Amino acid sequence: MTAEPSTPATPGPHAPAGPAVVGVVGGGQLVRMMLPEAARLTVPLRPLVRDHDEPVARVHPHVVVGGPDDEGLRRLAAACDVLTVEHELVDLDTLRALEDAGHPVRPSAATLGIAVDKVRQREVLGAAGVPVPPWSLVTSMDEVEAFAAEHGWPLVAKAPRGGYDGRGVWFVDGPGQLEEVLTAAPGPLLLEPALAIERELAVLVARRPGGQHVVYPTVETVQVGGICHEVLLPADITPEQDRRAGQLAELVADTVGSVGILAVELFVVDGQVLLNELAARPHNSGHLTIEASVTSQFENHLRAVLDLPLGDPAARVPAAAMVNVLGVGERDPRARLASALAEGCANVHLYDKAPRDGRKLGHVTATGPDRAVAAEQARRAAAALTGPEQETAG
Amino acid sequence: MTAEPSTPATPGPHAPAGPAVVGVVGGGQLVRMMLPEAARLTVPLRPLVRDHDEPVARVHPHVVVGGPDDEGLRRLAAACDVLTVEHELVDLDTLRALEDAGHPVRPSAATLGIAVDKVRQREVLGAAGVPVPPWSLVTSMDEVEAFAAEHGWPLVAKAPRGGYDGRGVWFVDGPGQLEEVLTAAPGPLLLEPALAIERELAVLVARRPGGQHVVYPTVETVQVGGICHEVLLPADITPEQDRRAGQLAELVADTVGSVGILAVELFVVDGQVLLNELAARPHNSGHLTIEASVTSQFENHLRAVLDLPLGDPAARVPAAAMVNVLGVGERDPRARLASALAEGCANVHLYDKAPRDGRKLGHVTATGPDRAVAAEQARRAAAALTGPEQETAG
Repeated sequence: MTAEPSTPATPGPHAPAGPAVVGVVGGGQLVRMMLPEAARLTVPLRPLVRDHDEPVARVHPHVVVGGPDDEGLRRLAAACDVLTVEHELVDLDTLRALEDAGHPVRPSAATLGIAVDKVRQREVLGAAGVPVPPWSLVTSMDEVEAFAAEHGWPLVAKAPRGGYDGRGVWFVDGPGQLEEVLTAAPGPLLLEPALAIERELAVLVARRPGGQHVVYPTVETVQVGGICHEVLLPADITPEQDRRAGQLAELVADTVGSVGILAVELFVVDGQVLLNELAARPHNSGHLTIEASVTSQFENHLRAVLDLPLGDPAARVPAAAMVNVLGVGERDPRARLASALAEGCANVHLYDKAPRDGRKLGHVTATGPDRAVAAEQARRAAAALTGPEQETAG
Repeated sequence: MTAEPSTPATPGPHAPAGPAVVGVVGGGQLVRMMLPEAARLTVPLRPLVRDHDEPVARVHPHVVVGGPDDEGLRRLAAACDVLTVEHELVDLDTLRALEDAGHPVRPSAATLGIAVDKVRQREVLGAAGVPVPPWSLVTSMDEVEAFAAEHGWPLVAKAPRGGYDGRGVWFVDGPGQLEEVLTAAPGPLLLEPALAIERELAVLVARRPGGQHVVYPTVETVQVGGICHEVLLPADITPEQDRRAGQLAELVADTVGSVGILAVELFVVDGQVLLNELAARPHNSGHLTIEASVTSQFENHLRAVLDLPLGDPAARVPAAAMVNVLGVGERDPRARLASALAEGCANVHLYDKAPRDGRKLGHVTATGPDRAVAAEQARRAAAALTGPEQETAG
């Protein structure tokens, strides 16, 4: 806890005639990475944090304290001109009420309502012509057996809402395992076949309220147990798959009416590009845009929610790689900085979070002429941050 | 003024086992541009600001209030583990006393003592074998006439201390003008011939306390009336001049024993590379390293003063250009953001300063395969920020 009081909506007498005040639901690494871009553009940022120990509150003087509930969201709205989010676990009824009262919410409650609901995603986007994997919403073993009869085992069961980083997703080999999941997870389950995934891709779209948008280069994501470990640019796909991925991302953004960054995660299965899921906010798959793109996802998110002209999403480097720094026990990357920096060519980003096993504590990006070389540089620095070496603060 | 109290040296109970606390004398754009790098590396930064309206205080929760005088410097030292500067107009006696008491000051008072004194620069560096233009320290018109007899008119007269951005420098055509300067400016004057400058260059060196250092690619600076207007990468020089510029910068850094970033400004005269002057801190000529280098000057300054391994200074792009946004009357770049962003490919950096004629209010950087194209992009966006168009906030 720091000693600063939160000071929402108190722009002093020298407040510039600049951009409007942006309130952001959340105080984690995503809004922390918005700070430099906000400062460069003199965008006043007001994150909504649960307490002063969240990553953004350590380095930003103006925060609003509260949760993403009715009380917190109304407090945030009173402190900003435009409200946006760094995560989707938000009280959507309050956001709708704020919109009805004329407060800009970007992305809208309607877009967020689709982003948080995997079943609605498949319904809405499937109807719009976006190819989605076969799926069924089941509540009974009879329905499971019917789906398995068509698609075979193994299957993937997903909680329709609230899952992330591998939580709320179960790979099941047969009816016994699935019955356990149905018993443990209350409510209906989304079933999909266990696809033979050749590649996982992500495409970011930055979109303004009027629909003007820019599409980032397709990246390849490497997931382990549902958690993103690496992101690689360029994706190792055919030009036709690349074109298709961008086209689908645009179609998804238009269909859900996103404003700000929309991250569209895709599968390549049997050579075809299918929708996996989406996130209506800056996304882990876009962290490498800080170094690799002319305009980072964080800058374009702010530009889009402020309805300012969007920046060029093109890569300024031939290749880049981002490797997440995932917690290993109690090891603290902040105490291992020197050994990571000694690795040389990589850019270390730490989120200043207390270490915990599996937690995203930071990431490392490297750029260069060759994707494999960049990935190796980023991996070495990331490994040094959670490695077994002795802790020595710089 | 904002409502936050300054909270030096109060790292809460969750303070990480990370890098040491860095105190920085100054609250302007240079320390503001250190903030993102400090956040990424979890370096606790404590700028010394005169008031809460300085550019850094608007976006950073932890500042120490005071001037660069004995009282302020001691207050800053008490709040940090390592003390550094964003400008050289500092009470050097206090810095020496702090050093004597065992407090790390990086760069040292000795290095800063050379950086602030153009005569000592020429003495110390000339003696070390760095080629400097012909010079003389004069107090009387007899001495002026003697120097003019050897080098001819016109001459350049410089105040030995305190000049920057064209202040404290006079181009004089003959004895009458020089007599006016001698009368107006008390104390001795540094005289130099008016050189036929072919190019102005700058080379940044980042150097650790033990002498380990990295050298940034040579850039070309475009000065108008002693004020930097543009910085271009690569410099339009021969490979031999490039090699020589880097070699001289290393020699200067070793000779003055710099720690942190040292900016070495050079002239090309008659094909030869000569020392112009130096700055022992991050420098305007290095702003393009944010986008163009693997490691920015701001990150390597922090790494160096913390004695952490230095990052790669190499360019990750073939070419880059930085154009300063200089105040034009009362026009406020913050209110012209939308038209600048509409220019597309450039990265806009605003310092959130009140507009004033000629004041550095921001800069714009563009990168790409071609230096001329990047310069044109950056110029267009910079011009839009101070152009005559109607003010419309985003």
